[in-house]
Amino acid sequence: VVWNRVCILGVGLLGGSIGMKLIQSRLAKEVVGYGRDSEKLKQAVVLKAIDTGSTSLREAASGADLVVACTPVQQIPEVLAAAAEVADSQALLTDVGSTKSTLVEQLSKLGLSDQFVGSHPLAGSDRSGVRHATAKLFEDRLVMVTPTKDTKPLRLQQTLDFWQSLSARLHVMSPIEHDEAMAVTSHLPHVVASILAAATPESLVKLTGTGWQDTTRIAAGQPELWRQILEENYLPVLHALQNFATISADWIQAIEAKDFTRVEQLLKSGKLIRDSVGNQHSSG
Amino acid sequence: VVWNRVCILGVGLLGGSIGMKLIQSRLAKEVVGYGRDSEKLKQAVVLKAIDTGSTSLREAASGADLVVACTPVQQIPEVLAAAAEVADSQALLTDVGSTKSTLVEQLSKLGLSDQFVGSHPLAGSDRSGVRHATAKLFEDRLVMVTPTKDTKPLRLQQTLDFWQSLSARLHVMSPIEHDEAMAVTSHLPHVVASILAAATPESLVKLTGTGWQDTTRIAAGQPELWRQILEENYLPVLHALQNFATISADWIQAIEAKDFTRVEQLLKSGKLIRDSVGNQHSSG
Repeated sequence: VVWNRVCILGVGLLGGSIGMKLIQSRLAKEVVGYGRDSEKLKQAVVLKAIDTGSTSLREAASGADLVVACTPVQQIPEVLAAAAEVADSQALLTDVGSTKSTLVEQLSKLGLSDQFVGSHPLAGSDRSGVRHATAKLFEDRLVMVTPTKDTKPLRLQQTLDFWQSLSARLHVMSPIEHDEAMAVTSHLPHVVASILAAATPESLVKLTGTGWQDTTRIAAGQPELWRQILEENYLPVLHALQNFATISADWIQAIEAKDFTRVEQLLKSGKLIRDSVGNQHSSG
Repeated sequence: VVWNRVCILGVGLLGGSIGMKLIQSRLAKEVVGYGRDSEKLKQAVVLKAIDTGSTSLREAASGADLVVACTPVQQIPEVLAAAAEVADSQALLTDVGSTKSTLVEQLSKLGLSDQFVGSHPLAGSDRSGVRHATAKLFEDRLVMVTPTKDTKPLRLQQTLDFWQSLSARLHVMSPIEHDEAMAVTSHLPHVVASILAAATPESLVKLTGTGWQDTTRIAAGQPELWRQILEENYLPVLHALQNFATISADWIQAIEAKDFTRVEQLLKSGKLIRDSVGNQHSSG
């Protein structure tokens, strides 16, 4: 299936990578980008991430049969609602936001449940901006697709087809399951990396090695974006952080008691989980 | 300066990499490895990490003018004391252990303060074993050298020369300063990575992305070795972990209060420190 006109709302790392792949693989007749910064849109055109760009959302979305929202998560309902007004009446609406429950609720209130199917590609990076975009970003990466009970099978299939055409691997789950899982596997690591970085006095930064550098890498992410993600998903994040604090308290107790047999057990339980993943390195 | 006979006690990733560089760059007339497993010693000879190997420490260390202890940290005093008995009476003794205060104290009690200067290369990895050894392991890596008030300038200089011949960068500090710094920059990240891994249910491991994978990478380290490191350095580690728990409590409070302005401030303070390092990737 070739799309007639794909509208990408927000042409950064993710939006730009989607556009590049669509253009390179001729999966769309036309890829139009919307953004507020005309210089960045020009850069995206030069990089062949979009065919054309516009700072007018109505202009960009007009007549589109696929609209992909790649803005910060709290702007997604607003930009998708505006795009739906001028897009093809049968257009598929999807997104790349990191949280889903609140989003789906808001889009349902806006009457967009028929057209919208949420997506979340696990292809983030500590890098951002269209200059880091690549058509290969989604290759073999996991994309979570989050239908609700209102999602029609055809819409779900269109969304799965779209991500498969970008060479992604798919995982279908409900918005709530998604958010609870991400609280543990994505949002908690971000908070923990941030705490660890903040716990390091500036004077010691020069003595850090690859361990500290790996463990804190994602703390370089954009605070404004992560604030939104944590706000959207605050209850699952709170629970994940409380669980983390409970295990930390176990550790403190074991070390205070000089119970290094217990320390070794704790280390082994962490290693067991880590070893089950393998040693894939950051794409960033 | 070319060493006559270098004895490497424990031929794993670090010991093997030292031997390879000494052999490749002809920095020693002879490199002898000691280990308990004769198969691993044979492998090290095949890989040209050592010229010869022996399961007898006395045989391996006999007549050496440089002895480098690369065993788990709690065995270092014992193996160095045994080596010093048979090595050249003027031999330099050093090590690659991750902690220094306890070690220096024990070696002082063993009467080895004149010959021993502690070293700690920041060149660890989640990989271990001589099969991962490389002559380039220390290239541009930071090595901390930890003289005491008893260390003679000549001994310190010999130690610095040795690490410089392996292309390392040097940082001289006292054993206590070293241990307090490492508690924050190395041992705390290890504990935190371990807690984060342990906080992830097995069923969610398949949904982890590069963020989780980076943040937990070092949790794959060997529990038996890390237990020793944490035991040797337990008080600075305890303080670092308590400080970490205090910042975690701030986070929990901010999220419970839905104070996302505060959350953004916390994220910014983490990013500020992380950004001051740059984005070097793991050597592992």
